[in-house]
Amino acid sequence: MTVGDIVRQQARINARKVGLVDDDKEFTYKEINERTSRLGNALVNLGLTKADRVAIIADNCHEFVEAYFATAKTGLTIVPLNTRLSASEVVFHLNHSESAVLIYKADFEDVVRKVTPDLGTVRHFVRIGPPQNGVVSYEAVIRQAAPEDPMIPVGADDVFMIMYTSGTTGSAKGVISTHRNIMAATNLMTIETRVVPEDVNLLVMPLFHSGGLWPTLCHFYRGAQTIILPRFDEKKVMQMVEERKITFLNLVPTTLRRMISHPDLGKHDLSSLRFIMYASAPIPLVQLREAMSILGPHRFFTGLGATESAAGGMLMFTTSEHAQALDGPLKDKLGSVGREAIGVEVKIVNELGEEVSDGEVGEIVAKGAHVSSGYLKMHEETAKTFKGGWLHTGDLAYRDDDGYVFIVGRKKDIIISGGENVSGLEVEDTICQHPAVEDVAVIGVPDETWGETVKAVVVLKPDQVSRITEQEVIGFCRQRLAAFKTPKSVVFVTELPKNATGKIIKNELKRRYN
Amino acid sequence: MTVGDIVRQQARINARKVGLVDDDKEFTYKEINERTSRLGNALVNLGLTKADRVAIIADNCHEFVEAYFATAKTGLTIVPLNTRLSASEVVFHLNHSESAVLIYKADFEDVVRKVTPDLGTVRHFVRIGPPQNGVVSYEAVIRQAAPEDPMIPVGADDVFMIMYTSGTTGSAKGVISTHRNIMAATNLMTIETRVVPEDVNLLVMPLFHSGGLWPTLCHFYRGAQTIILPRFDEKKVMQMVEERKITFLNLVPTTLRRMISHPDLGKHDLSSLRFIMYASAPIPLVQLREAMSILGPHRFFTGLGATESAAGGMLMFTTSEHAQALDGPLKDKLGSVGREAIGVEVKIVNELGEEVSDGEVGEIVAKGAHVSSGYLKMHEETAKTFKGGWLHTGDLAYRDDDGYVFIVGRKKDIIISGGENVSGLEVEDTICQHPAVEDVAVIGVPDETWGETVKAVVVLKPDQVSRITEQEVIGFCRQRLAAFKTPKSVVFVTELPKNATGKIIKNELKRRYN
Repeated sequence: MTVGDIVRQQARINARKVGLVDDDKEFTYKEINERTSRLGNALVNLGLTKADRVAIIADNCHEFVEAYFATAKTGLTIVPLNTRLSASEVVFHLNHSESAVLIYKADFEDVVRKVTPDLGTVRHFVRIGPPQNGVVSYEAVIRQAAPEDPMIPVGADDVFMIMYTSGTTGSAKGVISTHRNIMAATNLMTIETRVVPEDVNLLVMPLFHSGGLWPTLCHFYRGAQTIILPRFDEKKVMQMVEERKITFLNLVPTTLRRMISHPDLGKHDLSSLRFIMYASAPIPLVQLREAMSILGPHRFFTGLGATESAAGGMLMFTTSEHAQALDGPLKDKLGSVGREAIGVEVKIVNELGEEVSDGEVGEIVAKGAHVSSGYLKMHEETAKTFKGGWLHTGDLAYRDDDGYVFIVGRKKDIIISGGENVSGLEVEDTICQHPAVEDVAVIGVPDETWGETVKAVVVLKPDQVSRITEQEVIGFCRQRLAAFKTPKSVVFVTELPKNATGKIIKNELKRRYN
Repeated sequence: MTVGDIVRQQARINARKVGLVDDDKEFTYKEINERTSRLGNALVNLGLTKADRVAIIADNCHEFVEAYFATAKTGLTIVPLNTRLSASEVVFHLNHSESAVLIYKADFEDVVRKVTPDLGTVRHFVRIGPPQNGVVSYEAVIRQAAPEDPMIPVGADDVFMIMYTSGTTGSAKGVISTHRNIMAATNLMTIETRVVPEDVNLLVMPLFHSGGLWPTLCHFYRGAQTIILPRFDEKKVMQMVEERKITFLNLVPTTLRRMISHPDLGKHDLSSLRFIMYASAPIPLVQLREAMSILGPHRFFTGLGATESAAGGMLMFTTSEHAQALDGPLKDKLGSVGREAIGVEVKIVNELGEEVSDGEVGEIVAKGAHVSSGYLKMHEETAKTFKGGWLHTGDLAYRDDDGYVFIVGRKKDIIISGGENVSGLEVEDTICQHPAVEDVAVIGVPDETWGETVKAVVVLKPDQVSRITEQEVIGFCRQRLAAFKTPKSVVFVTELPKNATGKIIKNELKRRYN
């Protein structure tokens, strides 16, 4: 089975069911199947053949979903671009992936104009929106192409996608995912998340990222329904949950916090939600507990995924621990990313690649049918990250003797102060317990005596600004942490630099304070 | 991922959880993993190498489950034997499969003694029970072998199992299933049946049959729990459901009916059941409605599987239709085997292999990753049944325009009377509506004028015997069916011949009445 077969099957068994909702437009599975066939035929008519690359830059919209299935059906490779890329990054992604076609939403007209002179391989542009500057509109392309299935043989080992990692550090790497990788991830995620045909998925994470793609694939796979939100807006999310009886919500800690702290939270009936996923970035436990208390602990799930495992196919997952993790018997499991996801093998290894004992910290490495074979045209990076067939995640963690894994930080984010390893995450979690603190990042800064010392970059709650001093934060930590873990310095800022998925860009902070 | 990896993973993440219960014996996943490694090592120590075959004949027991995983881990092929085979059939199965080892339960000592002189390839016997006649006991074998994982490389395309079809007609055929087939089926079935780690499966169908194997694999895959019942006993089932809070029950129509009509039904709390599957044989709608009314319609699921699709990996499945199928909007879907199971492609075709229109009757053919590549050493049968890569099920059915498939009979069971096709199933369903009738089989018998005529073989309810005549049954049908469908003759019997899975052996009836 390949990714295109997902919509083909739904057109057979759920032809008249609305599978996708985008604002006031609703599409049945039969319509989606036909539209994706049309787009596939149009791409073939442009002269594209097997494994040619089709890039797309757009906020979440039905055309984005269609582009995934259209390329899947025709054996083409999709290259979804991050909407926050700078113009020079867009040029790099398009040229590096050797994309032949760029589909873009009208909002990105300026960027596209700007980068066009520097593109080496893009031969065709398709514009989501009215035609402009001689670029044909997406709807015209769809309309003019034949509605029949392109019937192009696509194999499980054909490449389906090049998704560039968001790259909080270093340069972007294009992860190669085959149809087999993606289908393995879709099976795994459907089992772990228990998606059923009755589910209604509110898509709030971007479709260019794994966090937007996997829920969409799972809901299509099960013939459920996906409702698109172009960009995250906490008020809109709550309204939609109430109106559309949303059952499934994949969030990141930042967006979860924004929803929980919204003054209108109590005004909306959110009881239809059966599955709230928070992942992609660490969440302070105090905030997680608050969210669980308000929305009901049994609705919460988390895990650990990677772009390198078929666009966010999970490596670790929780099952129903949250239901007993607030004050129940599993409260010491809160903060864990769960246990091995189904069919995945995970090891915690030391620098030599040897498995460490339970409780000892090492790097998470993983194997599974969804793990990518490597990065596009980056042999050295591939050899390093996929050494011995194991995906090296760069996440440092320990496993307890029940098999639960707890992340202590990123390999490159560990602070070594006076020879001691300090987990930035642990310090962040402590500082977050201070009632005046809204957000925090902890980094290592160079120090002549200690090698590195711990520095905290703190965002205070709006009504607490200027009411708390550096010394108070340090004192708060000293009572709770070993001396070598206690920050030597604290700065207050109004915002932390974050990427599209809510991960703090620590390299930027390090540059700023080093 | 191969089948052996299922227990390996559970030993990592659910080491201390009881995964298997057999009478008063409970086994944690760690223990099961170790015991299956020991048995695997023991088989290797006997000199068996990759793809050698290990047959087993036993009622349901933990050793049977262990044998599946032990052979999986060592790249050996398991041959599960039907416990109801005659001695000559046992000889055929063992010789045809070229089995090198026979594991048997003590109850089958007599059969084994009897067949031994005729066996051509079996070199070793292992006895589940105390040693006897020089045959070593299973527990001694386990005890003496090393507990370490045999670490034998096993590939997805290695053969895992030869399961012989129960063969209501013709000679038994050995269906070849690879690890890839079985894992595809396990993924599919886990998604469709929504098994979660909290589930408790009461295993009442035989482990030598797909109906016992697939629920076991799914529950192991999810780290849930399986409780073994050696043989079906409706009173015991109800007791176990109440005591063990069973959630998952895979039945056949006969056993479902026995449970529903048991006088103690009302005495047991069966509310823990979330999933009751009935399949493998047609069920009269009147009985299904009664069972749904008593136990709650939302708990019922059905589908259509085949030994040829990885030991019962489904081709068709229902989702949650039953909840609305008693008096609700989906009541016209009752009697359907559902729609295409996830990832499966189903067509209804005519004699030329062309797809027929919705509503027209044809043969069900199917494609999917779980569909076998063929029968062992039966090229002609393989070519016929798997023509063009499509599994030809022999089931005649039509599809409604919502994609639901309704079986009208077996291809070879269709009665052609005066040039008209009569579905035995339709006639059976009508006769079952008569309040005095407990069970019925409808067959065609030779007739000089009509080619064939319809004959009904009826089992009356115990208190109705001798109270109803042949003419009453015929009259009852005439009011409800076209003349050509109405039986020309009716006989009353006390029992219908059935195979292990509750399918009526119509060939035997035809022999008897032709």
